[in-house]
Amino acid sequence: MSKGRVVALSGGVGGAKLALGLSRVLPADELLVIANTGDDFEHLGLKICPDIDTLTYVLAGLDNTEQGWGRREETWSFMATIASVGGADWFRLGDRDLALHIERTRRLRSGETLSQITTDITRRLGIAHRILPMSDDPVPTRVRSDDGWIDFQDYFVRQQCRPVVRELVFDGADKARPQADVIKALGGKVRAVVICPSNPFISIEPILAVPGLRAAIENCGAPVVAISPIVGGKAVKGPTAKMLQELGLAVTSASVATRYGNLLDGYIVDQGDSEGVPGKVHVAPTLMTSVVTKEALARIVLSFADSLS
Amino acid sequence: MSKGRVVALSGGVGGAKLALGLSRVLPADELLVIANTGDDFEHLGLKICPDIDTLTYVLAGLDNTEQGWGRREETWSFMATIASVGGADWFRLGDRDLALHIERTRRLRSGETLSQITTDITRRLGIAHRILPMSDDPVPTRVRSDDGWIDFQDYFVRQQCRPVVRELVFDGADKARPQADVIKALGGKVRAVVICPSNPFISIEPILAVPGLRAAIENCGAPVVAISPIVGGKAVKGPTAKMLQELGLAVTSASVATRYGNLLDGYIVDQGDSEGVPGKVHVAPTLMTSVVTKEALARIVLSFADSLS
Repeated sequence: MSKGRVVALSGGVGGAKLALGLSRVLPADELLVIANTGDDFEHLGLKICPDIDTLTYVLAGLDNTEQGWGRREETWSFMATIASVGGADWFRLGDRDLALHIERTRRLRSGETLSQITTDITRRLGIAHRILPMSDDPVPTRVRSDDGWIDFQDYFVRQQCRPVVRELVFDGADKARPQADVIKALGGKVRAVVICPSNPFISIEPILAVPGLRAAIENCGAPVVAISPIVGGKAVKGPTAKMLQELGLAVTSASVATRYGNLLDGYIVDQGDSEGVPGKVHVAPTLMTSVVTKEALARIVLSFADSLS
Repeated sequence: MSKGRVVALSGGVGGAKLALGLSRVLPADELLVIANTGDDFEHLGLKICPDIDTLTYVLAGLDNTEQGWGRREETWSFMATIASVGGADWFRLGDRDLALHIERTRRLRSGETLSQITTDITRRLGIAHRILPMSDDPVPTRVRSDDGWIDFQDYFVRQQCRPVVRELVFDGADKARPQADVIKALGGKVRAVVICPSNPFISIEPILAVPGLRAAIENCGAPVVAISPIVGGKAVKGPTAKMLQELGLAVTSASVATRYGNLLDGYIVDQGDSEGVPGKVHVAPTLMTSVVTKEALARIVLSFADSLS
């Protein structure tokens, strides 16, 4: 008998690694991945959903492992041309990747929801497990730096995380409706809620900011387990460490755990990163450098969660 | 002193060849190319303007001469991917070509006119001469075949001109406003109006169907000269011959000249194609297989037109 569904909260690259591990050890109906859409933006008139896209490519086996983002077997003719016709070229869009953005934008304009489109496209690409956006309503992350408020991708890609982050807001989060199937899943039999090793500020907190989602997680009755994105006192990838510092927090696993507060029932940290972590802690190797280590961490997460229930 | 401006009416490939010839023998301010926009359509949410694009690529020296359409140094990763995410793949869009469609669509959605965008993009690509759409309002060509009415690109590309053409309409032509600078140019000092060797039914007649455009041409005081798209009793390219037959007309230069009626002051036909052509006829080699022959035909067109004024 099924122990219930695992609901995983994920951002892009780091989260997708664990989501892939989970998808390889759980049957299709026992995993739901909730994707952060706070990074979503419109660029060149196209709707780009970086975290959904990364999860999609990774779970479909289409990700570019050398590059660390985007699609495999990618080409760049569009990028080599766009500036010549006056288009912005600070956000890199591969020729194959464009297919997803163009088709999704067309379908959104025709009235379909992001959830419907994501479900359809992930199935077309052979993904058995479900990936759903946290909401079909836009909740764009905005960053306050010393020069004022800027859009997230302006900060993240165009300015390559150089501005000092003073504050983050999730625009429209107060009015956004949580994705209905996500709420339904959390109201059903849940084995565990897994907070993937994503950036807490820009990948997980936007999800928790959607009205009703945090409460649904708290009330689902299953253990909530997070995996620290900090390994050896550093962020594995991205601006997590820099943001922790800029927001006046120590670059430690404990800082991230404290940030999640009493939402967590358990926390998984790498060896040497457990100091000061509140609550139930499990130490395990959290660097996921291969499919084997992704699956291994997924199994550890599940057995740790099961031990807490 | 300038003899005035040459105003050329053009469709895609055949017309663009003569437009290129004219652009090489006339200074920038002495040539205006009016592009047919009856072929324009929305595909995958992108606005595609095949004749403007062909003229742009040809005059910018970016056309794919081996392929006969599209851009040079093109790649096809997008096309190799679009069907996998559920997108339509019957209209071929190269990765470089996409840059133009995406940036134009973005600008149209932001409220700019097709004329403004075309002027800006042609300049960015180094084209000194002006290319303008016949109208900023959509005038989509529709085709009646034995199975009813279909959109032009459905007929032209998806069904590869297989349906028998019974009738053509230019939707919205009654309400479309002619492009303002085109009307202004035709009201100024005009040396000649040149009807390029394009398909009369689907490339030139949509232009003439825009209210005021035909009258402006008739009243501009300059000779109107057409170049026959029929050479040796056959169409050089495309469905012109098939359409002539299906509409009950002989596949001859005379049929096309008769179709234009008293709009023409002179007609240029290839050797052996002059039989039955009404009015003033000039026989010249009209096959444009090289830049040299394009320039040569442009000079012939201009001197023939000058002889009529």
